Amino acid sequence: MSIRAVKAYAPASISNIGPGFDVLGLAIDKPGDVAVAQRDRQPGLSFVLRGNTAGIPSDARTNVAAYVAALLLGELKPSFGVKLTLEKKMPISSGLGSSAASGVAALMAVNALLGSPLTKSELIPFALEGERIIAGSAHADNIAPSLLGGAVIVRSYDPLDVIKLQIRNSIFWVVAHPHCVVSTAHARKILPELIPLKSAIRQWGNVGGIVAGLIAGNAKRVGTCVEDVIVEPLRAGLIPGFHDVKHAALEAGATGCSISGSGPSIFAVAISLESAKKIAGAMKRAFGKSANMQSDLFISRANLRGATII
Amino acid sequence: MSIRAVKAYAPASISNIGPGFDVLGLAIDKPGDVAVAQRDRQPGLSFVLRGNTAGIPSDARTNVAAYVAALLLGELKPSFGVKLTLEKKMPISSGLGSSAASGVAALMAVNALLGSPLTKSELIPFALEGERIIAGSAHADNIAPSLLGGAVIVRSYDPLDVIKLQIRNSIFWVVAHPHCVVSTAHARKILPELIPLKSAIRQWGNVGGIVAGLIAGNAKRVGTCVEDVIVEPLRAGLIPGFHDVKHAALEAGATGCSISGSGPSIFAVAISLESAKKIAGAMKRAFGKSANMQSDLFISRANLRGATII
Repeated sequence: MSIRAVKAYAPASISNIGPGFDVLGLAIDKPGDVAVAQRDRQPGLSFVLRGNTAGIPSDARTNVAAYVAALLLGELKPSFGVKLTLEKKMPISSGLGSSAASGVAALMAVNALLGSPLTKSELIPFALEGERIIAGSAHADNIAPSLLGGAVIVRSYDPLDVIKLQIRNSIFWVVAHPHCVVSTAHARKILPELIPLKSAIRQWGNVGGIVAGLIAGNAKRVGTCVEDVIVEPLRAGLIPGFHDVKHAALEAGATGCSISGSGPSIFAVAISLESAKKIAGAMKRAFGKSANMQSDLFISRANLRGATII
Repeated sequence: MSIRAVKAYAPASISNIGPGFDVLGLAIDKPGDVAVAQRDRQPGLSFVLRGNTAGIPSDARTNVAAYVAALLLGELKPSFGVKLTLEKKMPISSGLGSSAASGVAALMAVNALLGSPLTKSELIPFALEGERIIAGSAHADNIAPSLLGGAVIVRSYDPLDVIKLQIRNSIFWVVAHPHCVVSTAHARKILPELIPLKSAIRQWGNVGGIVAGLIAGNAKRVGTCVEDVIVEPLRAGLIPGFHDVKHAALEAGATGCSISGSGPSIFAVAISLESAKKIAGAMKRAFGKSANMQSDLFISRANLRGATII
């Protein structure tokens, strides 16, 4: 019996994790996006957008979920049509890999509807192409964790080399998403082409320490190494209240704190659920007090499964 | 009963391990240096140099082993004198942490003679001070692995933060030491102050991959990530035949190959002892053919114990 309809969930992700600009990423449990793929009598792809649709293109040619689904259908050429519904739940331009999650959820749903001919890893290039066309730059540090789960290193694009880390899942991650927007394109533009070798050495020492800390599940080690001497200083000014929120998180017990992706979300590292709750409260208060800004708080361990059929 | 004499061994180390300039280091079984500390009726420190003494100061004020031993004695103030004998076995200016091994062996021997009042980690600052005064730059990426064993990340100097990795010791390391000399000071001088951000990103992705690969004992992963896009291209020209030797190593089955420390030694990563022997032969032949250069070859797994009393 053929599959009539499939629903897929793709989690948000914290990319960079501080010093690992453009290479490190980690999937978290929530938020996330949902996509439903159904067989359709009408040939080709039809697309429906639901949920938090503000600011998101509903046109199948410019929506990332529809775009990557069309790419996959063009490759797999099924004998039937597909109706794709994106249930947009994540905030856009949040620094949490919103467009990556939409694309991944769509690819997972469509691939499953077609009998899962491709592996998760084989779906990465389709999601990358979607990011390139729709978001303007092809980076996999949100795509790969959202698909594969856990923590990943995106080492190389040509050839694509994604390392999934075998992590001990004992660290709690707090994410504060303030109700404002940072353009990823702008956040990239303000970065310099040249950086001091000295800063780069500090940065790769920290990246090495984060990798070791994630594998060991050592929140203290990971937090200490969440020290970004290159990108954070330049992007902090794009997020109202950043320094106060970071200070509040560290005061409340976070072992480390930095910008998630290109922001405005800020993540913090916690040694326990109890500590994470205290940190979340402190970050929310600081956003309110320092920047008069509402924020949503998420607490989660790493999502080890990645995108799933639900 | 008080201890009359102690002999200590400190192993050589591969620092940088390709992309991890100034932060990664790994102890290997051989070569290494030996120091003997004996109680002496004469107060203070007396120093004897033996072995491969060519190019090594025999004066206690300028020899690194004697210098750090004097620092330690100044701190611990024993009621008796100490005679320190350095049995120099390692080649100098080889890129294998020769001066670090001498200092570490001396510190281990003297500390043990005094009843081991300090831990290995507590000895690091003395060794660092020796490198700073004698070698002209204080770096711990040879000192820390020689002392602690295994693989380390030197993340920070102020405060000193050395991360010892819990590695699976299944990788074989081949080191080819050609009979020539590279000045560490000169090899540092040719590096630029600014580097492209793009290269730095590539580099920290590789550092992360090496850390993950070392922990997993994955020679293929480590070798793939031994890709240094910043320092190796600039230092390769200091080593006669570098490109041919590297090419020969990779052709013979090495999963990766780069400069050990500031050279001229070249290391390669092997998946087995059998493969390591093939690679060692190929590297030796290439040094001879391409640069008309004799070389010594060492094959070893990581030395997990670090400096030891023997």
